[in-house]
Amino acid sequence: MLLEAVRRGDVEPRTALERFSALPFRDLGFARVDVHREVRQEAPEAVLGEGKSPEQVTAIVRALLEGGAGSVLVTRADAATRGAVRSAETEAHEDERARCVWVARSLPEARGTVAMVSAGTSDGAVLHEARIRAELLGTSVTVQEDIGVAGLHRLAAALPELAAADCVVVAAGMDGALASVVGGLVAAPVIGVPTSGGYGASRGGETPLFAMLASCAAGLAVVGIDDGFGAGTIAARIARSAAA
Amino acid sequence: MLLEAVRRGDVEPRTALERFSALPFRDLGFARVDVHREVRQEAPEAVLGEGKSPEQVTAIVRALLEGGAGSVLVTRADAATRGAVRSAETEAHEDERARCVWVARSLPEARGTVAMVSAGTSDGAVLHEARIRAELLGTSVTVQEDIGVAGLHRLAAALPELAAADCVVVAAGMDGALASVVGGLVAAPVIGVPTSGGYGASRGGETPLFAMLASCAAGLAVVGIDDGFGAGTIAARIARSAAA
Amino acid sequence: MLLEAVRRGDVEPRTALERFSALPFRDLGFARVDVHREVRQEAPEAVLGEGKSPEQVTAIVRALLEGGAGSVLVTRADAATRGAVRSAETEAHEDERARCVWVARSLPEARGTVAMVSAGTSDGAVLHEARIRAELLGTSVTVQEDIGVAGLHRLAAALPELAAADCVVVAAGMDGALASVVGGLVAAPVIGVPTSGGYGASRGGETPLFAMLASCAAGLAVVGIDDGFGAGTIAARIARSAAA
Amino acid sequence: MLLEAVRRGDVEPRTALERFSALPFRDLGFARVDVHREVRQEAPEAVLGEGKSPEQVTAIVRALLEGGAGSVLVTRADAATRGAVRSAETEAHEDERARCVWVARSLPEARGTVAMVSAGTSDGAVLHEARIRAELLGTSVTVQEDIGVAGLHRLAAALPELAAADCVVVAAGMDGALASVVGGLVAAPVIGVPTSGGYGASRGGETPLFAMLASCAAGLAVVGIDDGFGAGTIAARIARSAAA
Amino acid sequence: MLLEAVRRGDVEPRTALERFSALPFRDLGFARVDVHREVRQEAPEAVLGEGKSPEQVTAIVRALLEGGAGSVLVTRADAATRGAVRSAETEAHEDERARCVWVARSLPEARGTVAMVSAGTSDGAVLHEARIRAELLGTSVTVQEDIGVAGLHRLAAALPELAAADCVVVAAGMDGALASVVGGLVAAPVIGVPTSGGYGASRGGETPLFAMLASCAAGLAVVGIDDGFGAGTIAARIARSAAA
Amino acid sequence: MLLEAVRRGDVEPRTALERFSALPFRDLGFARVDVHREVRQEAPEAVLGEGKSPEQVTAIVRALLEGGAGSVLVTRADAATRGAVRSAETEAHEDERARCVWVARSLPEARGTVAMVSAGTSDGAVLHEARIRAELLGTSVTVQEDIGVAGLHRLAAALPELAAADCVVVAAGMDGALASVVGGLVAAPVIGVPTSGGYGASRGGETPLFAMLASCAAGLAVVGIDDGFGAGTIAARIARSAAA
Amino acid sequence: MLLEAVRRGDVEPRTALERFSALPFRDLGFARVDVHREVRQEAPEAVLGEGKSPEQVTAIVRALLEGGAGSVLVTRADAATRGAVRSAETEAHEDERARCVWVARSLPEARGTVAMVSAGTSDGAVLHEARIRAELLGTSVTVQEDIGVAGLHRLAAALPELAAADCVVVAAGMDGALASVVGGLVAAPVIGVPTSGGYGASRGGETPLFAMLASCAAGLAVVGIDDGFGAGTIAARIARSAAA
Amino acid sequence: MLLEAVRRGDVEPRTALERFSALPFRDLGFARVDVHREVRQEAPEAVLGEGKSPEQVTAIVRALLEGGAGSVLVTRADAATRGAVRSAETEAHEDERARCVWVARSLPEARGTVAMVSAGTSDGAVLHEARIRAELLGTSVTVQEDIGVAGLHRLAAALPELAAADCVVVAAGMDGALASVVGGLVAAPVIGVPTSGGYGASRGGETPLFAMLASCAAGLAVVGIDDGFGAGTIAARIARSAAA
Repeated sequence: MLLEAVRRGDVEPRTALERFSALPFRDLGFARVDVHREVRQEAPEAVLGEGKSPEQVTAIVRALLEGGAGSVLVTRADAATRGAVRSAETEAHEDERARCVWVARSLPEARGTVAMVSAGTSDGAVLHEARIRAELLGTSVTVQEDIGVAGLHRLAAALPELAAADCVVVAAGMDGALASVVGGLVAAPVIGVPTSGGYGASRGGETPLFAMLASCAAGLAVVGIDDGFGAGTIAARIARSAAA
Repeated sequence: MLLEAVRRGDVEPRTALERFSALPFRDLGFARVDVHREVRQEAPEAVLGEGKSPEQVTAIVRALLEGGAGSVLVTRADAATRGAVRSAETEAHEDERARCVWVARSLPEARGTVAMVSAGTSDGAVLHEARIRAELLGTSVTVQEDIGVAGLHRLAAALPELAAADCVVVAAGMDGALASVVGGLVAAPVIGVPTSGGYGASRGGETPLFAMLASCAAGLAVVGIDDGFGAGTIAARIARSAAA
Repeated sequence: MLLEAVRRGDVEPRTALERFSALPFRDLGFARVDVHREVRQEAPEAVLGEGKSPEQVTAIVRALLEGGAGSVLVTRADAATRGAVRSAETEAHEDERARCVWVARSLPEARGTVAMVSAGTSDGAVLHEARIRAELLGTSVTVQEDIGVAGLHRLAAALPELAAADCVVVAAGMDGALASVVGGLVAAPVIGVPTSGGYGASRGGETPLFAMLASCAAGLAVVGIDDGFGAGTIAARIARSAAA
Repeated sequence: MLLEAVRRGDVEPRTALERFSALPFRDLGFARVDVHREVRQEAPEAVLGEGKSPEQVTAIVRALLEGGAGSVLVTRADAATRGAVRSAETEAHEDERARCVWVARSLPEARGTVAMVSAGTSDGAVLHEARIRAELLGTSVTVQEDIGVAGLHRLAAALPELAAADCVVVAAGMDGALASVVGGLVAAPVIGVPTSGGYGASRGGETPLFAMLASCAAGLAVVGIDDGFGAGTIAARIARSAAA
Repeated sequence: MLLEAVRRGDVEPRTALERFSALPFRDLGFARVDVHREVRQEAPEAVLGEGKSPEQVTAIVRALLEGGAGSVLVTRADAATRGAVRSAETEAHEDERARCVWVARSLPEARGTVAMVSAGTSDGAVLHEARIRAELLGTSVTVQEDIGVAGLHRLAAALPELAAADCVVVAAGMDGALASVVGGLVAAPVIGVPTSGGYGASRGGETPLFAMLASCAAGLAVVGIDDGFGAGTIAARIARSAAA
Repeated sequence: MLLEAVRRGDVEPRTALERFSALPFRDLGFARVDVHREVRQEAPEAVLGEGKSPEQVTAIVRALLEGGAGSVLVTRADAATRGAVRSAETEAHEDERARCVWVARSLPEARGTVAMVSAGTSDGAVLHEARIRAELLGTSVTVQEDIGVAGLHRLAAALPELAAADCVVVAAGMDGALASVVGGLVAAPVIGVPTSGGYGASRGGETPLFAMLASCAAGLAVVGIDDGFGAGTIAARIARSAAA
Repeated sequence: MLLEAVRRGDVEPRTALERFSALPFRDLGFARVDVHREVRQEAPEAVLGEGKSPEQVTAIVRALLEGGAGSVLVTRADAATRGAVRSAETEAHEDERARCVWVARSLPEARGTVAMVSAGTSDGAVLHEARIRAELLGTSVTVQEDIGVAGLHRLAAALPELAAADCVVVAAGMDGALASVVGGLVAAPVIGVPTSGGYGASRGGETPLFAMLASCAAGLAVVGIDDGFGAGTIAARIARSAAA
Repeated sequence: MLLEAVRRGDVEPRTALERFSALPFRDLGFARVDVHREVRQEAPEAVLGEGKSPEQVTAIVRALLEGGAGSVLVTRADAATRGAVRSAETEAHEDERARCVWVARSLPEARGTVAMVSAGTSDGAVLHEARIRAELLGTSVTVQEDIGVAGLHRLAAALPELAAADCVVVAAGMDGALASVVGGLVAAPVIGVPTSGGYGASRGGETPLFAMLASCAAGLAVVGIDDGFGAGTIAARIARSAAA
C-alpha cells in the first residue's frame, strides 16, 4: 500500500520510511505481533509453533485475528498446539502430516497456479506445508508426490501440470537431483526446497541444498532446508502476479 | 513449446518425453551445444567462460549463433576470452566489471521490471552479471549499488524502484542482512545472491548464503554464491510473466 | 584489587603474578571454587548447572556463599537443580524461562544501563539469562523482545532505550540481522548473542554467529551461541565503567 | 545526535526513524558515501581498500573529506592504493605493516585508554590496524606484542598497562589461549581478535575464533577473524565512555 | 597370484601373509617402488606426478620399467614432468588435457567395455585420466562428453554405449545429478567421479561428491574428487572380470 | 531389457527414451511404486522403512508383490514395521540386527561370490543389510566380522574368501583403515561402506568416508555412510556379471 | 616379544611378519578377540561397551580372561553392562562416573608416574577413564580436577605433581587452553584430551581439539575427543619406559 | 630446573609461580624472545620462519644465541630466509627439502632412539623437519620413507628399527592408515603427523588427522597437520626420558 503510493508518486520515498516506522503492532510482552504485514506485503504474519507454548501460540493467533488478519497459519505445531488452537478458534483446520493448523476467514481470490512435486514420500510434510501456505495466500496448487530421479518415467504424469503452472516447487532430499531435472525442462520459475530426511551422505539436508544451489539449471532458486512455508510464500507471490 | 502443447492437450504427456529425447544439439567433440534451449525454456544456453580456452568459447558461441540463438552470453570470461569473442563476432559487446561478453541479435521485447540492489561496491561484478542476463532475456532492470545495512538511510532513494518492480534482486556479502531488510519491506518476490567478497567471518560467501536462507523474511529465495547469472535468469522469468 | 595496586605502583608487576599464585580457592574434590574471583574481577564465579548433579551444584553454591560471595548465580539449571538450590538456600530466587537460580546477598549499587533486545520470542531464555547476570553484577537493564527485522517498525518503540543505554545487547537467531541493524544505529558498544533456535539454515546458531561477526556495523562484538551469561557479564562491565 | 534527542525527549521515537531516512549521503555511482555516520555514531565511515581500485578509494576518501569527516581511514590497502591516497591527499599517513592509510584532520580529544596485546609477532598487522582505528576515534592506546602462552612470564611486563586500561584488546592466532588467560586476570572488558596466521590446525583463524568464543573467561567478546578495525572501533567506544 | 594359490588351496592363508612380507620392492631413497603390484593386483603401480620433481618421477618410471612393468602411468604431471619423461623414455606418450604421460610396453589383451560420460566440458581432464588408466589396464573405453542434466536429451546419443557397457563411469561437478540419472537407467555397475570445477555452491567438488553418495540410484559407488585414476582402475577391474 | 534392445540395434536410442517414459508404475497417493525397476535394472525397488508408517510400508510391499516383484526388501525397519510386514505377508523373513524384513518369492539363480568383511562388531548391522540385499539379487555371500587393523593377524583367516571373491565389501567405522589394507591386497573390485558408529573423531562416519575416498589403494569405490543396501546392490551386480 | 626378537637379531624382519600372521585370536562369531595383544603390545585388548549388548560384552570379557589376560577393561559401559559384568565376574570393579568396569587379575608392577589434570568438573568422566586405564597398565597416577585457566592460581597446587611426573595428561573442553598453559610450563611429554562438554562454540569438543593441536606449546600431542582410554594408554607407555 | 626444585621440595609451589614471572626474555619490539625456555623445558625456543622477514628471523636467531641457546632452529624458512641466516651465522646448516636452517653450538648428548617412517615420498618435508628437531634436542633418529599401506610388504624392512625405537613417528597424508597399522604392531608410544598433500578427499590433511585420532590403535597420539616440529619435540622428550 505504502510502497504503491511511493510508486505512484503520491508519497515521497523519505516520507515512506518515516511512515513505515509508525506502523502498528500488538505487544503481548513475549511477542510483538505485526498486524500490519498483510497490508504491507499481502501476506499475514504466520506463527512458528516450534519453541512456543500452546498458550503463547493461541494468544498470538487471537491477536492476529483481532488485528484483522484474513487468515492465520501456525507451522511446525505439535499435536498439543494444534489442539489448543482448534479449541480456542472453532473455525480452525489442521493437517497432521504437515504439522499445520490455521484459520481462514477471508482469503484473497485465487489467482495463478503452482505445481508442487516431491522426490519421495518422506518429503510430504514439507510439500504440504508449502501447499497450505500458498493456498492461504490465494493461489491454486497441484501436488504430485514421489517422482524421484531413480525412476524418472514417473515424471511423465506430472508433465501437464508442470507445463500449466506459473511457478513450480520441487521438494527433494538426498541428492536433490529432481530439482535439476525439472529445472531443465520447464520455462516457469522453479523454487527448490531441500528436505532433511535421508541418510548416507544427505547431511541433514545440506547435500540437496548445495546440489540445488549448484544446479546448472538456471531459473531455479532455493529456500532453507524443510522450509515449505518459505517456498509456499514466494511461489504464491510469483503465481499471483503472473496471473494478475 | 512442447510443454505448452502438452498443456493445451495437443500432445500426450508420455509423447512429450519421447519427443524431448529427439531434440537437436550440436556436437563439437568437447561440448554438446543445446541449440534447442531457447525454444524450450525461452532462454538460450549460455557459456561459462571459466575453464574453457578462448578457442573453445568462440566455437561454442559460433555454434549457438548458427543454431539460431537470438543472443549468446559468455560469463566469467577473462580478458583473453572476451577479446577472442569480440574478434570473432564483430557485433559482440563486453562488460569488463561483470566479466561478460555477449552477442545480442534478436532479443525478446522487454516485459516487466527487475530492481537490483547491492549492499556494497564490491558486489558490483555479480550484480551487473545479473543485470546483463536479465536484459538479454527481455526485461527492464534498474540498479542501485552500495545501500548496505550499516547506513540504512541510503535505502530510501531505492524505494520507488523497489515499489515498482515485479521482482527484486539483492546482492550482498558479509552478513547478507540487506536481503532480510528488503524482504521485510516489499511485496514482490525477492531473489538473494550471496557474494564471496569480504573477510572476518564471511567464509567465502557461505555466511550471507546461510543468513539469506535463514531469513525470517518469507518471500525470499536464494541462488548460489556469486551466481548473478542464475539470479538474472529467474528474475527475468518472474518479471516477464508478471507483466505478460 | 591486585592489578589496581600494580597500576598505582604499589606493587611491582612481577610481584603481582607471584601474589596471584597465592590466591585462595576451596577444594571440593570434584571442583575447586575460586572464592577470590569477585575481588579480582568484580564478578563472583558463577556455576554452570549443566553436567553437574543437584548435589554438586548445591555444594558449590554453599562454598561460594561461605567464601563470602555477594551473590551466586547458577545457569542452565534444570528444574531439579533449581529446586535443590532453593531448598538449600531459602533466600534463593529462580527464573524458569531463563533456567537460572540465584542467591543475592549483597549486590553492588547499580550503575549504568544496558538495553537488551531480541529478534524473536524464542530468544527469550538467552536474553533473560543475560539480564539476570547483568543485574546481579550491578547495572540496570531494560528489555524489549521480538523486534526482528521482518517487521522493522517494531524497533521504533525501542529507540529511547537504545539511545539512553551505555551498552546494548542483541539476541538473535536465524540470520542475526537485527544486530547489524542496531549496530548501524547506535553509538554505544553493541554485544551480539547468537541463539541456536530456528531451522532452515540456521545451523544451530552458527549462521547468526557468523553473520554477526561479518557484520559491516563496526562497534559490535559477539559472544558464544546462547551465551547470555557471557553477554550479561561484559555488558555490565561496560555499563558500570561508563557510569562510574 | 538524533538518538540523544530521543533520549532527552526532544524527539519522538517514531519521528526519529523518519528523520533517519532523511540523512544525507553522497552517490558516486559505484558507492554511496555515508557522510553522516560520524554525526550518528561518533565514528566516520571507513573505507575497505580490498576489492576497490586506487581510483575508487581516492574518490571515496575525497567525498568523505568534502563531507566534513574529521578523519578518514582506509584499511586493507595495498601499496598502490596507499600511494594513490598519499598522492591525492598530501596530509595522509600510512602504516605499511598494518596496510592502512589515513587522513586525520580533526580528531576528538583523546579519552580513555585501551591496552592492546598480541600473542605473536605475526599478529602485528591486525593489532596495529586496531591501534590506528582506536587512536583516530580519540583514545589512547598502549601496545605489547608477542606475549603468548608458551612463555607466560612475558605477560608480567604487560600487567601495569592491563591494570590501567579501560578496555583490553587481545590479538591471537593458533589456539587463541592468550585471550582466555588475560580474560581471567583483568576486570575491564576484553575484546578478542582471532588472527588467521599459523598452521597445523588453526584453520585460517577459525580455531582461535571458536576458542575465544568458548572461553570460560566471562567478560570477553570477540570480533571477526583479522578484524582489527572492528576491535579498534568497539574498544575505543568502551574506553571513551568509561573515561567520560 | 599368491591369493589365487590360496584360493586353490596350494598355499595356506597364514603362509600367504608370510610370503606377502617377502615381496620385492626397489628402494630409491625418497621412494620405495612396489615392482610387485602388477603381479599381485594385475595393475602396475602408477606415479602421482604432483609434489615430485621431474627427476624423481623419471627415476621412478625407470625403476618400474626395469622391474618389468608392462606399463607405467604418471598422473597429474605438469608440462615439465611430461617433457622429462618423454625425453627419458622415447616410447612415452602424453595427453596434455588429462595431464598424463605413460609408457605402454606390454598391455594385457583388452577385455570388456567401459562407457565413460561427463556432464560438462570442464570434466574432460578427469574423464580422460580415467580413460587412459582403464585402457592401460586392458579394457575398451567409449567416451561421451557434456551430456549434463540441464539438457537431458543429449543423453539419448549415449544410450547404445551405456547399454553395451560392462561398467559405466560418470564424471560430473556442480550438482552431480547426471550420476543419479544414469544410475536410474542402466543395469551395469556405475562409478561416479565428482569433479572440483564449478562455482556457486559446488564447494570444490564436495557437493557432487555428497550428492552422488546420497543418490537414491542404487548400483552406484563413488571415488574421490577428481580421481579419474581411481575410477579408471575399478572400472577396468569390473569390466575385465565381466568379460572374462 | 529396453537397453539391451538398444544394444542389439533393435530399438533406436531416441525411441528408447520415448518408451522409457511409458513405463508402468503404481500410484498409491503417498507413493508411486516403480514396478518396472526389476525388469529395467534386474533389481526390484526396495522400500526404505525409515520415515514411513507400518501401514505405508505394508501397502508398498503389497503393491510391489502384486506388480510381480520376485522379492521385496524393506530396510531400516523398526520392530513395528517388521511385525506389520510379517503379519501381512506370511512368507516374510526378518533380521533384527540388520533391521530388515523381506519377502523372497522368486530369486534369480545365484551367480558369483561377494566376500564381506567388517572391522568391528558394531559394523554388523550394516554388513548384514548388505548381505541380505546381495543374496536377494542372486549372489553368494561370505561374511567375516571384526578383523580390524588394530589386530591385523585376524585378517589371515579371511584370505581364502577374499581371494575367491568376485567382489569384496569392507564395512568399517572410525579410521576406515581396513578398506585401505584390503584394497592393497586383492585384485577384485572393493566396495567400502563407512559406518557411523564410534567416537573420538569419527564424526558420525565422515572420517572413515573420507579416509576410504582418499585411500591410495586404487580399485576401491565407496557408498554412503551406513549404506549397506547400496553396497549390496553394486557388489551383487559386479559379482553376477563376473560370473556370467 | 616378537619385535624384541627382531631387535635382538634372533628373528629376521620378513619372518616376523610371517609369524605375526600366525598369532592367535578367539572367534565368537560377532567378534574376534585378540588374545595376543597383551603379549605384543604389553596392553590387553579392551572392550568398548558402547554398541554392544551386555551379553556380548560379558562373552568377550570371558574370552579375554580365558585367553590369559592379566586384566580386562570395559569402557563406555552403561549401568546394565556394568552390572552384567559384575554378576559374571565376581572380582570385577566398576566406576560409575567413568562408566568403566574391569577385572584386574595380574597387573604389571607399577612403574613411572602420570599427572592427570582437568580444566573443569565436567571433564571428570574422561579423566577417570584415563586414570583407570593407566593404572591397569601399571603406572602410578595423580589426579587434580577443575584447575582451568579462568582462575589460573588454582594451578599452583598441582605444580609439585606436574614437576614430578613422567608424563602429563590434560583433559579440557571449551577452549582447551589449559593444555597450552601446562604445555608451556613442564618438560615432560604432555597428552591433551579434548572433551565434548560445554556450549557456546565448543562444537562437541572440536574447538578444544583444534586448539590443542594448534597450540604453540611444543611437546604436546593429542588424542580423540573424550578418548580417556587412548590418553591413558599412551601416557602409561611413556611413563613406564621413562621409569624403566 | 624450577619445577625440579619444586619436586625436590626446595621451592614451594606458590613460590615457583612467583619466580616463574621473573624469568628473563629479550624484547626486540616485534618479538619477545624467551631465552629461558631451554632451561625450563630442555628445548630452546624455535623460530617459525613463515610470516617473518629474513631480517626479523636473523635478529631473533642472534638474540637467542646471545641469550646462550645451545642451538637455534628456524622452520618453514624459504630460500631467502635460509640464505640470510647462513650469511649472518656462518656455522648455520640448512635442509632445503625440510625448509629448515639451524645453528647447533652445543647439543645435549644423544639419548634414546626415535624411528620415523612416512607413507609416501611427499611426506618427506614434514618427516625431515621432525628429524632435525629431534636430533637437535639430543636423540638418535632413523628414517624410512614411502612404506604406505597400498604395498604393506615394504613395511618389513622397517621392522627392526620400529622394534628398537623408544618412540615412533608416523607421517602420512591421504587416509593416514599407516599410523593405525604401525600403532597396532609396536609397543612404544606412537606420534602421528598428518600431512596436507594429496587430493581426492584428503581435505588439506584433515582426513588423515581425523583418521589418526579415530584409530583403534591405542598408544597413538597426534600433532597438528604438517607439524613435524611438534612431532620431533615430543618424540625426543619421550625417547630421552626412556633412555635416561
